Amino acid sequence: MLTAKVLITLKKSILDPQGNTIKRALNSMGYPEVADVRQGKMMEVKLNDMAREKAVAIVDEMCQKLLANPVIEEYSFELVED
Amino acid sequence: MLTAKVLITLKKSILDPQGNTIKRALNSMGYPEVADVRQGKMMEVKLNDMAREKAVAIVDEMCQKLLANPVIEEYSFELVED
Repeated sequence: MLTAKVLITLKKSILDPQGNTIKRALNSMGYPEVADVRQGKMMEVKLNDMAREKAVAIVDEMCQKLLANPVIEEYSFELVED
Repeated sequence: MLTAKVLITLKKSILDPQGNTIKRALNSMGYPEVADVRQGKMMEVKLNDMAREKAVAIVDEMCQKLLANPVIEEYSFELVED
């Protein structure tokens, strides 16, 4: 079985208020060394047996269509064998 | 500058309704080969210059205290040099 580990982050040019809030919380909790926080999503997608090339194409399509919002987010993924 | 890439996932024994909803959505969008989806969070924490050992200790502490909920979530992180 193949598992796709998909990482979805906001594009660098897009503000990340949630990450900023986490940064401020950490600073005020006694971690002044935290300079920046960006938040993103992670998804583990398990796929039934198929060829690796087909899996790459399918996961890319799923990211475009449902998992990520290509207008403001970018994604990357790797496939690992279970 | 050091960046900690933190991954936070629900423990295996905890139900993931959000992941399950994504799985069903993908299945109904024409991807019957998706067997399971688990959703998690990813955070990039940038730290001002410090020794690697100290950074590991600090990030671990931040995960315990704020970033993850150790009751239902598990976390892992790696430090990369920018």
